[in-house]
Amino acid sequence: MSAYQELETRFKRMAALGEAEGMLHWDMSVLMPAGGAASRIEQLSALKLTTHEMKTDPRLAELLEAAEAEVPDDPWRAANLREMRRSWVHANAVDAGLVDATTRACSACEMVWREARPENDYARVLPYLEEVLNLSRQAAAAKAEALGRSPYEALLDQFEPDGSTARIDSLFTDLSAFLPDFLETALSRQSARGEGELPDGPFSVDKQRGLGERLMRTLGFDFDAGRLDVSLHPFCGGVPGDVRITTRYTEDDFTESLMGVLHETGHALYEMGLPDDWRYQPVGQARGMALHESQSLLIEMQACRSREYLEFAAPLMRETFGGTGAVWDADNLYRLYTRVDRSFIRVDADEVTYPAHVILRYRLESALIAGDMKLADLPGAWNDGMEELLGIRPPEDRLGCLQDIHWYDGAWGYFPTYTMGAMAAAQLFAAAKEARPEIPEGISKGDFAPLVGWMRENLHTKASSGSTDELMQAATGKPLGTEAFKAHLQTRYG
Amino acid sequence: MSAYQELETRFKRMAALGEAEGMLHWDMSVLMPAGGAASRIEQLSALKLTTHEMKTDPRLAELLEAAEAEVPDDPWRAANLREMRRSWVHANAVDAGLVDATTRACSACEMVWREARPENDYARVLPYLEEVLNLSRQAAAAKAEALGRSPYEALLDQFEPDGSTARIDSLFTDLSAFLPDFLETALSRQSARGEGELPDGPFSVDKQRGLGERLMRTLGFDFDAGRLDVSLHPFCGGVPGDVRITTRYTEDDFTESLMGVLHETGHALYEMGLPDDWRYQPVGQARGMALHESQSLLIEMQACRSREYLEFAAPLMRETFGGTGAVWDADNLYRLYTRVDRSFIRVDADEVTYPAHVILRYRLESALIAGDMKLADLPGAWNDGMEELLGIRPPEDRLGCLQDIHWYDGAWGYFPTYTMGAMAAAQLFAAAKEARPEIPEGISKGDFAPLVGWMRENLHTKASSGSTDELMQAATGKPLGTEAFKAHLQTRYG
Repeated sequence: MSAYQELETRFKRMAALGEAEGMLHWDMSVLMPAGGAASRIEQLSALKLTTHEMKTDPRLAELLEAAEAEVPDDPWRAANLREMRRSWVHANAVDAGLVDATTRACSACEMVWREARPENDYARVLPYLEEVLNLSRQAAAAKAEALGRSPYEALLDQFEPDGSTARIDSLFTDLSAFLPDFLETALSRQSARGEGELPDGPFSVDKQRGLGERLMRTLGFDFDAGRLDVSLHPFCGGVPGDVRITTRYTEDDFTESLMGVLHETGHALYEMGLPDDWRYQPVGQARGMALHESQSLLIEMQACRSREYLEFAAPLMRETFGGTGAVWDADNLYRLYTRVDRSFIRVDADEVTYPAHVILRYRLESALIAGDMKLADLPGAWNDGMEELLGIRPPEDRLGCLQDIHWYDGAWGYFPTYTMGAMAAAQLFAAAKEARPEIPEGISKGDFAPLVGWMRENLHTKASSGSTDELMQAATGKPLGTEAFKAHLQTRYG
Repeated sequence: MSAYQELETRFKRMAALGEAEGMLHWDMSVLMPAGGAASRIEQLSALKLTTHEMKTDPRLAELLEAAEAEVPDDPWRAANLREMRRSWVHANAVDAGLVDATTRACSACEMVWREARPENDYARVLPYLEEVLNLSRQAAAAKAEALGRSPYEALLDQFEPDGSTARIDSLFTDLSAFLPDFLETALSRQSARGEGELPDGPFSVDKQRGLGERLMRTLGFDFDAGRLDVSLHPFCGGVPGDVRITTRYTEDDFTESLMGVLHETGHALYEMGLPDDWRYQPVGQARGMALHESQSLLIEMQACRSREYLEFAAPLMRETFGGTGAVWDADNLYRLYTRVDRSFIRVDADEVTYPAHVILRYRLESALIAGDMKLADLPGAWNDGMEELLGIRPPEDRLGCLQDIHWYDGAWGYFPTYTMGAMAAAQLFAAAKEARPEIPEGISKGDFAPLVGWMRENLHTKASSGSTDELMQAATGKPLGTEAFKAHLQTRYG
């Protein structure tokens, strides 16, 4: 067996263990009883340490060097080798003690946060968050040295490979210059044309779920290869062949869960479209969280909040809930689904204000990782930032710095990928429509084959064979930029 | 760190990985979509191989030798070391190739069996079963040599540590002499007093589940530390703190799912009662499948099919399903729940005929493992055996050799533990009632604290600190025998 082949065997094993870990995370979020928490931490810790040991095995380093001495001709194998090295660098920068302490600190902090958030009690979770940040900063410093990048970029690289803060700063500066005035424009236009009206409930959970499943099917979600469940924090987990998305329901309002389901279905379609041939190899994984988010936002924001889609979906909504009157017309539902509003909660934010939520978090986490800010000062800095960026001040921390699971679960360096994903979604959607002009007409009939087919061909099956920018360049003719996103906002809200 | 302490650390890691494996098995049986099968095999295979590598690491052998050179004074530590050695011998007898081939062959065979059984198609699953048996015989031969025991006993040892065929033969011979005549007696008595009558359905699944959960609570099942779900083949999985039992429902008959739930709750109580201090160590695990089955049968057969319990449960059943008339009286339900019948399906069999089902399987699997019989001849041999033992001949293989998941999933050497469990249940129940005469009165009021308390003290918390016979001796004053079981049958059916 060549060194390269032996690497494939070892990485396959590590990927399978990583999938086991992912399934246990899914279970923990969806159905594990509280009494399982302590055991689950032991199980996850054992998996993480075992994988870490496999990655720090000196034999793996030898194999990588031997394989790199003769880079394979095949570009996928060459890319696979690059991704193996990236994974090796991340693992070998940190020792087992730090890996284990981090797993445990994150689990403990997340569990306290689940209670502290509804209780609005930042002080209670603060010591746990201090520990998580402390360990994350240690990992960031070690990885920064190994990667030759800044500590923040070393963390970002885990979610957005090769992500650069200079690039993010430039994209975000551009958006920051555009958005405040644009928001005023959008709000005036909205008040001129009138806001959409939410139909009166209650909307039974069974009916919401039934409609969600029906719309998932029209998008191409295969229920023999996935599931829809309920969790406090909606997410997409599982593996290709068994993709598991979640949502949450409230009987007062069906619109949230429905768009949430469509959003997660976008993530699921990416996973379902990854190339089988590279299933357990690093190059066969989704490229990064920016492109992953681009796929959920492509479906939710670009496609399903469009006028065309609501022409298709409005009658199904009306039928499902037995609705009557103009409130169930596509026109009203479109206005409802494109409502713009200055609000406190990121996950409920509209497309126009969402970037401000992300920019705030990016600034704050950059300062916290750099050591330029203390966690004790976070609530105040958060509220000041919201006031500066959106002109509103959260009256309490659950509407402020307690709202997101990130940070508390150890995901530092993740937030910028949301807005990079929104930009990528707009850019990919524009390119797809240019290549296949039948896409909007398809969407108006609930036919997603042209759109999903184009994405499958130009993005899903490419997996991690190139960088985010290379994949964007190949699919859209240019690297990731703000232009298409701004054009999209102009068209829809301007 | 001493050699013993280092062993504890290593075995804790292996236990946590084993728990991860168990959770993935649970998921596969309860909710995994079909598309997840191929990935799940990779995940389970990666876990099994990783654990096998940890157990065959030469350093582990050194540590065991070093620790055994100075056996700890503490009896639990000494027992723990013995169990570590047992686990080491099993793992080191087989190579990684055999471990992996077995994992994959069993998964593949089980999946084909799931379809072949309803289709009544033994020929279809036969080549898969051949492969499973072939690999199981290889493992049996290798383990037999390592353990200095027969191949069959080497397999049995995995489920019933130190289990001996001479002992099983002697117990089963005793029962075989007693049961045929006793069955005639029980049937005559039944026809004299009249059989119980099944109330008319349908019985909604929601109501069945609600009643099941209510009765589980009276037994002491804690829903913050466990779950009740649905699967094709009811089982008890999960871990202490997160024990997961399953059942299956049919709307025609609530009595099956209800007793199934009580049976699995018995298993769950054992897991919930294992000692926290030894949670991830070999000595902290349930002693073996005979004692595990004793706990499910103690609850289901000894306690919950008793007249006393039905005095308590009958009004709850009547209330749940809105039943009227004498058919809902404790007297009728008791006759229904203690009905004796010659039937084809083991899992539906009554206490009197059940041992015949097990004796048949024990004979057949002994011959198959010894190489004295071919799988092609299994259906005929099965049917002949049923005729000899129970006087009935299965008209088709789904009522014969296709009925059980065992064998197809690789569990050879498991069957005898069912009847050993039935004997142990009777013996433990008799001892418990002698020690705590208030037990029957408690059961008639749905108060299980005296019974479960006694079991917790005398069995659950003992885990694997002694052999099955040592634990039986300590709890009941004698080793496992047939006497209490026969006395129980005499009292209830004679």
